[in-house]
Amino acid sequence: MPSVRQFSREQRVSIPTALHAYVTLEMRGLVEARPKSGFYVSVRFSDAIPQIVRAVTAPKVSDLAQTDPLDLIRADEYQPDKVQLGSAVPSPDLLPGVRLARIMSGVARRLGASGGNYGPVAGLPLLRREIARRSLSAGMNFGPEDLVVTLGATEAVALALRAVCSPGDTVVVESPTFFGLLRQLREIGLKALPIPVDAINGIDLDALASALGKTPRVAAMLLVPNFHNPVGFVMPDDKKRELVRLAASRDIPIIEDDIFGDLPHQGPRPRALKAFDRDGGVIVCSSFSKSISPGYRVGYIAAGKWQQRVLALKRTQSGGNPLLPTLAVAEFLESGGYDRFLRSFRQSCRQQVAAMREAIGHSFPAEIRLSRPAGGYVLWCELPARVDAMELFHRARAVGIVIAPGPFFAADNGFRNFIRISCGYPWNAQLERGVHLLGQLARQLSVR
Amino acid sequence: MPSVRQFSREQRVSIPTALHAYVTLEMRGLVEARPKSGFYVSVRFSDAIPQIVRAVTAPKVSDLAQTDPLDLIRADEYQPDKVQLGSAVPSPDLLPGVRLARIMSGVARRLGASGGNYGPVAGLPLLRREIARRSLSAGMNFGPEDLVVTLGATEAVALALRAVCSPGDTVVVESPTFFGLLRQLREIGLKALPIPVDAINGIDLDALASALGKTPRVAAMLLVPNFHNPVGFVMPDDKKRELVRLAASRDIPIIEDDIFGDLPHQGPRPRALKAFDRDGGVIVCSSFSKSISPGYRVGYIAAGKWQQRVLALKRTQSGGNPLLPTLAVAEFLESGGYDRFLRSFRQSCRQQVAAMREAIGHSFPAEIRLSRPAGGYVLWCELPARVDAMELFHRARAVGIVIAPGPFFAADNGFRNFIRISCGYPWNAQLERGVHLLGQLARQLSVR
Repeated sequence: MPSVRQFSREQRVSIPTALHAYVTLEMRGLVEARPKSGFYVSVRFSDAIPQIVRAVTAPKVSDLAQTDPLDLIRADEYQPDKVQLGSAVPSPDLLPGVRLARIMSGVARRLGASGGNYGPVAGLPLLRREIARRSLSAGMNFGPEDLVVTLGATEAVALALRAVCSPGDTVVVESPTFFGLLRQLREIGLKALPIPVDAINGIDLDALASALGKTPRVAAMLLVPNFHNPVGFVMPDDKKRELVRLAASRDIPIIEDDIFGDLPHQGPRPRALKAFDRDGGVIVCSSFSKSISPGYRVGYIAAGKWQQRVLALKRTQSGGNPLLPTLAVAEFLESGGYDRFLRSFRQSCRQQVAAMREAIGHSFPAEIRLSRPAGGYVLWCELPARVDAMELFHRARAVGIVIAPGPFFAADNGFRNFIRISCGYPWNAQLERGVHLLGQLARQLSVR
Repeated sequence: MPSVRQFSREQRVSIPTALHAYVTLEMRGLVEARPKSGFYVSVRFSDAIPQIVRAVTAPKVSDLAQTDPLDLIRADEYQPDKVQLGSAVPSPDLLPGVRLARIMSGVARRLGASGGNYGPVAGLPLLRREIARRSLSAGMNFGPEDLVVTLGATEAVALALRAVCSPGDTVVVESPTFFGLLRQLREIGLKALPIPVDAINGIDLDALASALGKTPRVAAMLLVPNFHNPVGFVMPDDKKRELVRLAASRDIPIIEDDIFGDLPHQGPRPRALKAFDRDGGVIVCSSFSKSISPGYRVGYIAAGKWQQRVLALKRTQSGGNPLLPTLAVAEFLESGGYDRFLRSFRQSCRQQVAAMREAIGHSFPAEIRLSRPAGGYVLWCELPARVDAMELFHRARAVGIVIAPGPFFAADNGFRNFIRISCGYPWNAQLERGVHLLGQLARQLSVR
């Protein structure tokens, strides 16, 4: 780094200000001070780990029949004694649960009997106004009437799929993709057409165009363009624009899962695919489950052309959301509490991901590749080809460590030697030990 | 009535006790005291109105394409300035909303951050235990593992239909039946096979058997055997047994909507169809929306053979229910509050239905027929054949009275001269005026 004096001169700030900036960087672990020598950019061990470049599965329609991991995924459930590297859920200690509970308690008392009324099926107007207001930061511009409040992004995606697909249809997904999305396709009786992604640009648009040319009818694309789960990429804006244009030209609806969009580690929130939508062909689904509270089950959908269809489906599938939790979330947004919370939460995510990458770098076999997500809190790790991730998964479970093995994220049993590691918890000794142990298990499997 | 003295002698009770009994009957409006003459059984004007015997539509599969009343049904929405005879929702003043809000407020405070966790997809174990315990009163005998907590009966029925039907399938329904059920069939792309009901025995089992013989494949029966909406019948136990046997012999699943089952006006709770189920072929759906709180959205399903399938669908369609409202309802059940509440609420339902029948008898055209429900709070009224219920509906709406017209309850545009009237509100002057005005409108339409 330049000396403090030089930096102060170059940046035209006072020496105390320059020093304050350096100390702040030091506190964040980005630079380190060496006595009598000056400030140096910190070397992280994990910086040397190569990024994952691209998956190599060739696109092929899969009927998903063989790959239901339901019985194995216990990671959804809440087990405080386990080392939680499996489920992409943040630590309750990080979330504004107490604050929200206080709002909820007040709302319940204040509304009394009328808190038990059916609300409108589309959802509480206050919440839709707040979500609409926030949509500007993602390059969208909703009115409250463009939105339907849902039970998490889960219901939003289910409604979108029901609105645009019929059983037997084929849906484009990223390869790899979040297992919950594959599970949804499977339950509705849809087929998947997995298209490879790379860690920089997201879904491979050439491979996509070519696969669309060869596949008779594709009913929809179900994609996670921002802080992709599990790979962590954010599609660049020009790729987003190109993708939306490609889909529109072939009249294929895009269902966008933007659930991690609010969680960049630094800088502005990335734009949604929906921001590039000109004809209502993009359906955006999201929720506050990853950033306010999983259990309040407050999500939303903006379904473009299919808005009325989605509203009718919502009416018959579950009716309106429960009023009180929805109102509590709406008041939290309205009060500015969510924006304040996000500032600290984004920093926690960044630190946790960095700490986890570092620990993985120290413990895992040398030949791994590891994602470098710019937001969210999951890591995608490619292990040496010899390592069977399912076996690692079972061995880790046996010693109390939960991870999500690669095959869960594959429509077609690929990603045999990949694992997803969640960084939802602040770094602590239990995690340290867990990752160390996991690395040992991976090493054992890699030398057999 | 016998004299108080004579009654005391006959029943071997003291004179004060006998007098107390007579005064209680008087307070309930069942007897009246005439000075210097004694007690007389009250004559109700409405006792003379004939019961509805049976609808006359011949069973014919309908694709439901022409009958979506969605645009017209505003009755779902909450409009305090309207005379609410439309929506089958009780007055919030009757429901334990304040009590529940207090529990909810306490639960939120007590749980703090952890109230925001994802719960198990099948639903809170405490609630499932309480529902299982209560199932005995309906002749069922569930364990908690037989149940999945849902977002009202709406989601329960949607899950059941998704579990046993595919788009294009035919489903037996009662004729008439609740429009919400028809709407669900329509949204999923199912066809309806409406079978006539009568006000005493429910669905006509001969007509059913004959229609099943003529229809290639029936995927399910979607029925409301207890306090049917809109007709009000409770199927007698022997008919229930026969119906379940008929369905089992043809391997047709029954989806039972038991949402009003907890609301007999007097006497014990009727048994569910599920009580007669021997092979897991009956799926029972219910909720606390009609008897605790519509807006808490707490319902449940016991799906028999399809339990695992329903659980998987619930996972992908909406995830688990929001934790806090579910826990509040569970604690209300556990504390005995629900049972205490039901005692007074059942009496309110009975009184409101009686008052409404009486007012209808005084205001409506003389040729009407009117249901005599033994539970719940809706009335089904057959108007003179000349009256077009849709026109009555529109005219009534124009003067601020909401009713539900007969065609909403028909799979095939029948019931042109029927209306359903909800008695969810305690009798008051606004209702009195509303029913009087409605009667005038009906008379006008009947003499054209």
